[in-house]
This record gives sequence, structure tokens and C-alpha cells, in this order.
Amino acid sequence: MEPVVLRGFPSTSGDDCQLNVIKLLQHASRTFPEVEVVTRRADGSIFRYNYRECYRRVQKLANALRKLGVKPGDRIGALDWNTYRYFELYFAVSGIGAVLLQVNPRISFAERTYVINHSEAELLFVCEDLIPTIEPIAEELKTVKGYVIITDKTPREVKTKLSPLYFYEEILENAEDELEWPVIDEKSAYSACYTSGTTGMPKGVYYSHRCIYLHTLMIALATEITCRDVVMQIVPMFHAQGWGLFFAAPLMGAKLVFPGRYAADQPGPLVDLLISKKVTVTAGAPAIFMPMLEYIRKLDKRPDLSGLRMLCGATEPPLAMMKGYAEYGAEVIHAYGATETTPLVLINRLKPSLAGLPDEEKWDLRRKQGLPVAGVEIKVVGKEGREVPADGQSVGELLIKGPWVTRSYYNDPRTAESFANGYWKSGDAATIDPNGYVKITDRFKDLIKSGGEWISSIDLENAIMAHPAVLEAVVVGLPHPKWEERPLALVVPREEYKNRVTKEEIIDFIRPRFAKWQLPDDVLFVNEIPKTSVGKFSKRMIREQYRDYFMKG
Amino acid sequence: MEPVVLRGFPSTSGDDCQLNVIKLLQHASRTFPEVEVVTRRADGSIFRYNYRECYRRVQKLANALRKLGVKPGDRIGALDWNTYRYFELYFAVSGIGAVLLQVNPRISFAERTYVINHSEAELLFVCEDLIPTIEPIAEELKTVKGYVIITDKTPREVKTKLSPLYFYEEILENAEDELEWPVIDEKSAYSACYTSGTTGMPKGVYYSHRCIYLHTLMIALATEITCRDVVMQIVPMFHAQGWGLFFAAPLMGAKLVFPGRYAADQPGPLVDLLISKKVTVTAGAPAIFMPMLEYIRKLDKRPDLSGLRMLCGATEPPLAMMKGYAEYGAEVIHAYGATETTPLVLINRLKPSLAGLPDEEKWDLRRKQGLPVAGVEIKVVGKEGREVPADGQSVGELLIKGPWVTRSYYNDPRTAESFANGYWKSGDAATIDPNGYVKITDRFKDLIKSGGEWISSIDLENAIMAHPAVLEAVVVGLPHPKWEERPLALVVPREEYKNRVTKEEIIDFIRPRFAKWQLPDDVLFVNEIPKTSVGKFSKRMIREQYRDYFMKG
Repeated sequence: MEPVVLRGFPSTSGDDCQLNVIKLLQHASRTFPEVEVVTRRADGSIFRYNYRECYRRVQKLANALRKLGVKPGDRIGALDWNTYRYFELYFAVSGIGAVLLQVNPRISFAERTYVINHSEAELLFVCEDLIPTIEPIAEELKTVKGYVIITDKTPREVKTKLSPLYFYEEILENAEDELEWPVIDEKSAYSACYTSGTTGMPKGVYYSHRCIYLHTLMIALATEITCRDVVMQIVPMFHAQGWGLFFAAPLMGAKLVFPGRYAADQPGPLVDLLISKKVTVTAGAPAIFMPMLEYIRKLDKRPDLSGLRMLCGATEPPLAMMKGYAEYGAEVIHAYGATETTPLVLINRLKPSLAGLPDEEKWDLRRKQGLPVAGVEIKVVGKEGREVPADGQSVGELLIKGPWVTRSYYNDPRTAESFANGYWKSGDAATIDPNGYVKITDRFKDLIKSGGEWISSIDLENAIMAHPAVLEAVVVGLPHPKWEERPLALVVPREEYKNRVTKEEIIDFIRPRFAKWQLPDDVLFVNEIPKTSVGKFSKRMIREQYRDYFMKG
Repeated sequence: MEPVVLRGFPSTSGDDCQLNVIKLLQHASRTFPEVEVVTRRADGSIFRYNYRECYRRVQKLANALRKLGVKPGDRIGALDWNTYRYFELYFAVSGIGAVLLQVNPRISFAERTYVINHSEAELLFVCEDLIPTIEPIAEELKTVKGYVIITDKTPREVKTKLSPLYFYEEILENAEDELEWPVIDEKSAYSACYTSGTTGMPKGVYYSHRCIYLHTLMIALATEITCRDVVMQIVPMFHAQGWGLFFAAPLMGAKLVFPGRYAADQPGPLVDLLISKKVTVTAGAPAIFMPMLEYIRKLDKRPDLSGLRMLCGATEPPLAMMKGYAEYGAEVIHAYGATETTPLVLINRLKPSLAGLPDEEKWDLRRKQGLPVAGVEIKVVGKEGREVPADGQSVGELLIKGPWVTRSYYNDPRTAESFANGYWKSGDAATIDPNGYVKITDRFKDLIKSGGEWISSIDLENAIMAHPAVLEAVVVGLPHPKWEERPLALVVPREEYKNRVTKEEIIDFIRPRFAKWQLPDDVLFVNEIPKTSVGKFSKRMIREQYRDYFMKG
């Protein structure tokens, strides 16, 4: 907890003006009414309108929500791809004081049931093609009083047993298009997201209006968004509000592009949008940026992506990918965040004082997560709770606090183990270098404990991914009868190298950078690496699958 | 007042993290410790240190203030030029919960006495060469318990009768250099500034921590400040915190340059700093930017100022000056603000949708104050309190509200006439065009009422200033026996045109742009135009001086 708060002399400022989310869109509608919001529909066609038209629909949607009985404080779930309707929902739901529950369509049915029941959601908005993620669990959703289908089709064309059933465009059509927004205490929740990929059921983070408003100002500053930018929302909006880029765009009057549904194995539509809409800012994971790069490389006409900033929140974006995009003029910017932190905590920008570094050292630097943004406070603490020296070597756990960092998990006893003195304990192992750059060396639980020493799975992965034959690679520590744990590498070879690269080649390639005992005991070539619902490698699943690999013999 | 505030569902966010001013410097000290803060001393030498060293001194200063008996809530006055020590004061005073009173050295003795007594300041920091602005009134300052002299000299070299007397560097030297900052309720005042240039005594605005913190995020966004920038603080820090650029610099880790004392008739040192420190962001009035431009034009070596953004808060920066700087690659960015608004309200950036305009229309557009930034809400209302149409023609009064707009004047009955429904009534006449750009057409009281019609004094001034022989021009409405008021122009000719330009030439030059009855009745050539303490033309003084000009004849 923060220490006692001291009251000084009273100010005359407008301190009672609440930082409400709807004000971001209101600003865009008034000051940048002409700026476009573009969405790629499910059928591949393009839907476009501008902030003024968007705001009018958000007003209608808010009125429709009230007509459906939504009250301030209610939790309203949403399952949708990145589209203008999801964008509208964020504003309309929070605008009337309710809470938009971000429901992840990729988690298990059991988890999804848990999330919806735990939040006690009253209403669910469901994109038509995500109905199958809800229908099988509908009977277990005791608090849900209705379903609103998001679709471009007519109601008749939609087949579902969900009930009572409403349709997004129908409820909008019948709603008044003006309303006086209530002033909402900025400390009220505007949205909620449940962490996934952890052991046990997901844990709920309830973001306040104040939290996302301040975060929006900072993400805009960190990614240098202006009204001249075109922002494409690639990261799913159902996960930690997808870096919140879609809030920074109306804040600054930037154009917005929503790619709708996309798949990593069909990156064409994303690349087409990137080029045709002249996108300058986006965010995503290597799982999607890598296949996009492969696709770009095969284009007949070499695109010019100069000016494009690609925020990449992976534990570590592969250097080869960063260099690959640089060839087209685009900059992959490494950043760090989590569901618990809204998410922006660290971003990697080159300090002018380091501008004179040799190129290779600059690349090394860009592999780090970067510098904390103003507003969040971080510490890297060792076992005794003391901060580790800023030497770029000493490893500790990254602790974080700030106005957009959660103080707890909603109604969850697991809160006790994850917070200390107001800081969230990230569970990430990190170093901090003399210039202040933080590097996540691993998840604490992904560090490999071999013969009493530690091996970073991430360092091995990156070394392997630099091999030209490698598309993706992951390294996990598996139980070993003698050494406690030993590293195993899984590698997805590039199409053209399939069956043409060997374990020995991989090991020889990385050998110069590691001690002998740090090298993987085996390298397996696979077609696919198991991923979490948000596209990260699921080391948990891999460890489970290969649990006995070294034990057998 | 805002409507009733609605409480929604509780969030789990760190909503109790207070937005305290000291956090900006703490951030810079931790994340950008190596970045320099450069000050030009009174003797012309350069003092430089970095954010880490600065922060250490701020901690010492805070400890020293406590030792002098400063308590949370106390008001502490400061009279200084733009230097690193003023910068330190802003953080140390507010950091321990006290209020930094910005004392304007250019207002009258009576006004200064009023401001210090009205705020009940307990302690005054006075730059050595500003002692004469305080000594004559010291006996009337009943609440002031001591004076701290800011000087590079030794105490012995300073002659003054002020007592009890302390010296800045002495109190620092004897102070501890570490302290635990208190957490301050963000709605507490961090600083106060009294408006000047109005009729009657100055009115007090007390800015909260929250107000300046949010303002800092927005001024950084609006001027696009990054860690790659070099920010020079030209606007006096004693007036509405000088656009607050010196807060945006530590927020983003930008280098800071303080020019110390400077004078408009000796722009050399300012220009030298601008060029030698490779300044990229600054703010100032035409009163200082104009002579700087003249000086630049006479330099032997033509400087390259590309990338330089010059925020200009004048009612209207002369187009000739804007074009003049453009020749060197610098951009004069028109903006609008006031003491009451911290100050940023409007800033002129070109919307991409207008990028295709012909050059001359772009210049016309840049003469407007621009678009409101996110966070402030504006209205332009006509006589019946209704918003005027956004046609670029209809004139109304500009009303403003937001988290960094004051709700009242501190302890002042004049509050009643200046606020309505939460909005501050700016007293500025404005239009708003179909693209959302606001133009201040005049102060309401500076509009000239001639024969029942209105004439904009500013339009006339700008037209006159475009004449190559004109350095400065001002137009005021003076009482007239027949027409109620008629315009009089005062013109300062450029050095090389002195006694070589006539009234007829000026009138002929502007004739095509005005109706005959709008043209000034007379043009007087003068050596100087009376200015207010903040460098604006003092139309009040001019009207007084020439009161009977048209009545006599």
C-alpha cells in the first residue's frame, strides 16, 4: 500500500473532471470527425466510416444497452475479432458506467465458463462465428440474461440455440442517437480481462477509467502517435485491450484500421492492409509478425514500410525478424507488458547518448525490453528482496507498480502470493543494465535448473532462431534423473529446409555462444509449437507433453 | 459544476497512486540520469549537470526547506529567471507538499505586494539581481518570514537589507542529500500563479499536482517531445509555468536548456544557445521570436534550424515571422493558453485531410490558434449562450473546462463573473471553422465598436505587420465623438526604414483587405509599443495614453 497521503493547500484546478473513457472518442468526434476507421469484414470487403459516424453509433449502442436493462456497474461480456463493433462496445459499455468483460475465445471451455461466471456477466456480445465457443457452455452461465449476436448477416441467416437472442444492428437501429453521458467516478472499472496461460483458473484484472486514460496518454507518447499516423490494431482487443492502441488513435486523431478475423497461416490480408492503408503504427507478437514477414518477402513488388513502428511484446522478438523488417524500413520496437499492467511498462527506444554504438551493439540493445515509461515504477529484486545491481548481469524478479498496474486480482485468494508493498510481482526474471535497459531473461518458472546452475531457455531459443533454416524454436527444461533438468529444443524448420537440417547443424551453430553444459540435450523437428490463447509458446503444454523425455532413458 | 458522479463497479487498478510532480524528475533521474540540463549563467558562462545530479540537489533542497520550517501547504515565493535553480525549486517545494508561488518581477510594486500578501507566502526565493523588485516592499510583506538569495556569488558580495537572509547554495550545502518523499494528495496545489495584465489586482490560480501532471503528458504529446529532443525554456517560468515545457522534458528524458536572464533587445545569447545546443523545441512570444529572427538573418553563417518547433502563444504570430523561420527550416506552431488553463488549450497542427491545400491557404490556416487538445472541452458561445455555428465567421466567446482549467480564482469575489457551468469564460472572441480550427479574433474588450459595427484590431495589426517596413504594430479602438470608437495604429518601423515609410503607404498596403470604414483613422510611428509584464502589447496602457486622440480633433 502507498504510505499515508498528505493533503496540502487546496487547488483551484478542475480536479473533479473525471478521466472517463468516452471522452477520448468524444474528442475524436469533435476535433477529428472526418478521420476514418476502417475494418476488414469477414468476407474480405472493407467497411469504413469516420469518428463522427462512429460516435453516433456509440450513442445509439449506449441507449440500446440501457433499453436492454444494463445498469452502471454491470459486467457485459464481448467475444469478437478486432472490428469497429468491438471498438464501439468498449466505449458504449464503459460510457454508461458498465464494465466490458474481454472474453478470450481461445481459452478452454472450462476457463471461459469460469471467467464469465466469476465476473457475473449479465449480457454477452458474441460474434457470429464465435457462437461455437459459447453455445456448449451456455447452460452453465447462470448470470447471463441474454446474447447479442454481432454479424453482418440478417438474423434469419444466423443459426443458434442461444436465448434470449438479440442482434447488434437491430438493437442499434431501434435506439435513439443522442444521449447525455453520465459522469463516472474515474476509479470505477471500465473493463476487465482475465489472465490466461497461468496454472489454475484465469485471474481477473478490473481496469479503471483513470487507469486506461492515463495508459492511453502514455502509449501514445511511447509510440509517438500523432494525427498523421495510421494505427492498425493487430493484437487482439480481447486480451489486455490489445496494448490499447485503439484508444491512442482517437486521443490523437489518428486513422484506425481493424483487420477483423485473421490467421497466422494466412497473413496475406494483414499485409495487404498494412501496405494499402499505409499503416505507420501497429503491435503484435512474433507469431504473427514472422509469417507476415515471410509473406512480404515473397511479394512481387517490394513494399516500402519506412516509418512503420511495430510494437512487439514478446519475451524476445527474434533478431532475424527485427533485421528482416528493417530491410523494408520498418522498426520492430520491443516492449513489455502484461494483463496486470494494462499493459505498457517497458519500451525500447534508443537513447541519444547511445547513438554512437556500433550497429551490432545497437541490435543487441534492441533485444532488451527497454526503459520503463514515466508513471510506472519498477524494481528488480533478488532473493533477499534487495534491488540487484544495474550491471546487466544480476538477475532478479521484476516488480511493478503505478496507476495502471493492478493492486490485486478481483475476488481471488491468489492475490496474496502476487503482490508485495504495492508492487505486482511479475514472475519474470530480469536484469537491468547501467543505461537503465531492462531485459527479461526468462519467466522464473522457465529457467532451466541444471546441476545447480541456471540456463536461460530464452537465450537458447534466440540463438537457435538466428539459424537461417529455423522458422520457430522453443526450449524447455525437462526433468532429468541426474541433472534435475536438461534443455530440450523444439524447432519448426522453414518450408524450404524441411528434412534438410539436422540436430548437429543446429547445435554446432549455437555452440560458440554457450558453455557446453548449457547446450540442449536434444533438438526435435516439429511442424508446430503449442501456443497459448494469446499466441505465445505454451511451455507448460510442452513440458507436459515431453515430461518423461529424459527420464525414459 | 460537473453533474453528479456515478460510481460503477470497483476496479483493481492502482488508483491510489497519486500523480505527484516529483515523480517526473524521479523518472528522469532513474531512467535518463545521464541527460543534461544546461543553464546560461548571468556572466554568460554555461553551467551543466544531468538529471541524476539535479535530483540529488532537489533532495537536498527539500531537506533544507524543511529545516527552514517549511510545512506542507505553505506558500513559497520564487523570483528568478529561467535557470536550473528555478527548476529545482519547482520540484523541491511541491515535493514536500508546499506550493511554489510564481512571482512576476515585471508587474508593479503594488501588484507584487498584493500577490505575495494575498497568497500569504512564508518564504521568498529571490535571484540576486531581482532584489530591487522586493526590497522596497519588504516591510509590507507581513507573512514572509525569510528571504533566500539565489546567486552564483558569495554571500559577502551580495548587498541587501532583506532579513532574515539565507543563501541558496549555503542551505543546500548543509542539507542531507536523501529523503523519502511524502505521498501528496494529487488534488493539493503544487504551484500558484496570479494573472496579470487585467484590470484590478492580479487573480490567483492554484494548480494541483494532478493538473500539471496531466498537462505535462498533453504538452509532450502536442509538441511531440521524445528523448531525442532538446528543449529550451524561453517563456518565463514565472508565468503559467512557462507552458510547462520544463516538465515535459524530464517526462520524456529530453535534454533541457535554460537561457537564464535575457532581453529582447539582445537576442544574441538566445540564438547562440538555440544553434549551439541544437534546440528542437521551444516556446515564446513574437516579442522575443521576432528580434531573434532579425538576429539570425544577420548571422555570417546561415543556420540550419530544421526540426525546430517553436510554440508561439501570441494572439497571432505575424505571418512574416512564421515564414521567416520557415526559411531556416523551423516551424512556428501557433497555440493558445492562459494562466487559467495551465496553459495548453489549442495547438495548430495540420490535419492530414488538409495536406492538399495550396500553400497560401495552409499559411492562412496556420494563423489560427488550432485544435483543442484531448482533455479540455471548449465551446464558442454567442450572446444567448448558444454555441455559434462552426463556419469560421460567427464570433462568440471561448469557454473552456477540463482537468487543467481552473474552477475559480483563489479567495477572490471576481470568480463569480468569470465562470459558468464549470467553464472558464476566457473573454476571448473566437470563431471555429468547419475543420474544427479555432481562431481568436480579439479580446472582447479589444474589439473596436465603430458605428454599431465591430472591427477586429488583430486583423488590422496582422495586415500592417505584413508590410516589409514594419517591425511591430498595434491597433486600438479610441473614443470618437461621432462613431463611438475608431481605430488608431501604432507602428514601430524597422531600423532601415525609419523616417522612410509614411502613413499613406501603410494604409494603401492594407486597403485591399478591408472595408473603407474598417481602416485606421491614423497611423503613428513610434520607437516602442508599451508591453505588459509578460511581453504582450498593453492595449490598456495605449488606450489610456491616447484616450483623447480622436476627441480633441
